[in-house]
Amino acid sequence: MKTETTVQGLNASLTAARLGRKTIGLVPTMGNLHSGHIQLVQEARRYCDLVVVSIFVNPLQFGVGEDFDRYPRTLDEDRKLLVDASCDILFAPTVDQMYQQWPQATLVTVGGLSEELCGAHRPGHFSGVATVVSKLFNIVQPNLAFFGEKDYQQLAVIRRLTADLCFPVEIIGVPTIRAADGLALSSRNAYLSPEDRSKAPLIYQTLNWIAAELLAGSREYDNLSAKAVATLKSQGFEPDYVEIRSTDLLHPESTAKEWVILVAAKLGQTRLIDNLLVNIGKDPELRSKRPVSASRKA
Amino acid sequence: MKTETTVQGLNASLTAARLGRKTIGLVPTMGNLHSGHIQLVQEARRYCDLVVVSIFVNPLQFGVGEDFDRYPRTLDEDRKLLVDASCDILFAPTVDQMYQQWPQATLVTVGGLSEELCGAHRPGHFSGVATVVSKLFNIVQPNLAFFGEKDYQQLAVIRRLTADLCFPVEIIGVPTIRAADGLALSSRNAYLSPEDRSKAPLIYQTLNWIAAELLAGSREYDNLSAKAVATLKSQGFEPDYVEIRSTDLLHPESTAKEWVILVAAKLGQTRLIDNLLVNIGKDPELRSKRPVSASRKA
Repeated sequence: MKTETTVQGLNASLTAARLGRKTIGLVPTMGNLHSGHIQLVQEARRYCDLVVVSIFVNPLQFGVGEDFDRYPRTLDEDRKLLVDASCDILFAPTVDQMYQQWPQATLVTVGGLSEELCGAHRPGHFSGVATVVSKLFNIVQPNLAFFGEKDYQQLAVIRRLTADLCFPVEIIGVPTIRAADGLALSSRNAYLSPEDRSKAPLIYQTLNWIAAELLAGSREYDNLSAKAVATLKSQGFEPDYVEIRSTDLLHPESTAKEWVILVAAKLGQTRLIDNLLVNIGKDPELRSKRPVSASRKA
Repeated sequence: MKTETTVQGLNASLTAARLGRKTIGLVPTMGNLHSGHIQLVQEARRYCDLVVVSIFVNPLQFGVGEDFDRYPRTLDEDRKLLVDASCDILFAPTVDQMYQQWPQATLVTVGGLSEELCGAHRPGHFSGVATVVSKLFNIVQPNLAFFGEKDYQQLAVIRRLTADLCFPVEIIGVPTIRAADGLALSSRNAYLSPEDRSKAPLIYQTLNWIAAELLAGSREYDNLSAKAVATLKSQGFEPDYVEIRSTDLLHPESTAKEWVILVAAKLGQTRLIDNLLVNIGKDPELRSKRPVSASRKA
C-alpha cells in the first residue's frame, strides 16, 4: 500500500490506473478506523480495481466547541488495518494541503436537507462535508465512492450533491456495522466512559422498539418519537431528536410502507447517532443491494 | 460538428476522445455568439485536440427582473459560426436536462469575491455562475476551460472556485474583443437603441482616461472613480460602479504597479460591463500570455 500526503503525489500514484482505465474506488474517512470503515474498504475492493482510502479530519465540518481538536488521530494503527484490508493507496493530506487558503472562499451547500435533523444541531456541518467531498472527488476522480449508512443524512446529502453537480461518481451506501450489543460502530464511541458505554445500546433498542411499533401498525409518528425521547432522557441521554421519516428524509404519509428512524443523542460529552430502515414485509435490516456500474464515463 | 443536447449523448460523443487521452477544451457560453466567443473557440482550438462549446442560458445566474426571458437565443446562427470555427461538439442542453430538480438544492458559492462589484448589484449571480460551471466541468471533464476577460470578476470567481474545489481543469482567460469604436463585444449590445449604441463607447473611453491618469502618476483612486461616474452620468448612463482594483480585485495600495479598472453601467434598459488592465511600463492592453499545460492528470 502506498501512502500519499499531497495531491501531486496522489496524482502520480494514480497515473497508471487512470491510463489503464481501471475502476477507482474512494472511501473517504476521518481515520481512527474500525470494522465499519473496513467494511467500506471491502465493498470497494469487491467492485473496484484500485481502492483509495482518504483519512482527513476535516476542520470545515466541525462547529465551534465541537471535538475537532480531540478527534482521535491514529494514523499508524489505521495504516496497518488498511494494509490488512488490501487498500491500494492511503491518501492522508494535511489541513494545509487540503485548504491552501483558510478559511476557504468556496463552499458547497445542499439546501433543505442540510438544515434539519443533524444540520439543525450542527450549523454548517453538512456544508463542510459537501465541500470536502467535492474536493476529494476532484482530487481522486473515482468511479465509485463508498459511505456508511450509519451517517444516513450525510449519505443523502452526498447523493443529492453528486446528482445536482453532475459528479461522474457512483455513490454506494454500505450498511452499518454494530457491536454485539447493537451499538453502531463509531470513532466517537471511544469517548464513552465504561458506564456510558454500557448504556449506549439503548439507542439501537429504541430504534428497534419504534420499528416494531411501525410494523405492528402504529402510524402515530409524533407520539412514538416523543415516547422514545422520554425513554432516552430517563436513562441519562440528552436527545437532539428522534425522527421517523420517509427514506428520502421527508415527513412520511400515514400510508407509507418504508421509513427510516433516526436518532441523535448526547451521552455525557459524546454525541451519538444511529438509524434504522424499516420496510413493511421485510426484516428491518434487510435491504436490496443495488447493481453497480462504473459511472465515470469512458 | 456534432450537436448534443443530453449529458448521455455528450458522454457518448466524448468516449473516443477520453479513451484516447485527447486534450479536451471547454468554452462555456450562453450563445448568441459574436467574435469574442469565436476568439475563445480559436484559443481552445490552439491548445486542445477536441473543442466542446456549451450554449446554455443558465436561469440560476439571472436575478428576478433581469433579462433571462429576453436573452437572445440564436442557436441556428450560433451553430453555423461554430462549424466555421472548427468546433468539434456543441453541447446545447435544455434547462430540464441541466436542472433535473428545480430549484436545485445544491449551490456553489465563492465567498467574498462574489459579494462585491457586480455581485453587490446582482445578488446570487456569481453563485449561479459557480454552480453551473461546476456542473459543466463535471459533465464535460475538460482539461482546459476558456473564459473571456471581459467578465473579469466572473473569471476571478471561476479561478478561485477551480482552485478551492480542486477541479482538475486549467482556466484560460482570453482578452476582450472590441468593436472598432472600442465597445467591448457582448450579446447584450443587441439590446441598445441606435442612439445608445453610439454613446456606449464612452465606457471604454472612460477606462482609458483612468488608465492614462494612473500611468501619469495619479493614485487618487476614489477621486478618479468619482469623476468617471460623473462623466458617465452626464451622458445618460446609470453607473453601478467604477472601481480601480488590484488585479486580484482587492483595494490597491498607492504603491501598486498594476491595476484593473472595472465599470458597470446601465444605458437605457441595458447593463454593460467592461474592464481594462493597466501595468506601469506596459501598454494597457499588453498582457503576458501564460504557458499552458493540461492539468487533468494522466
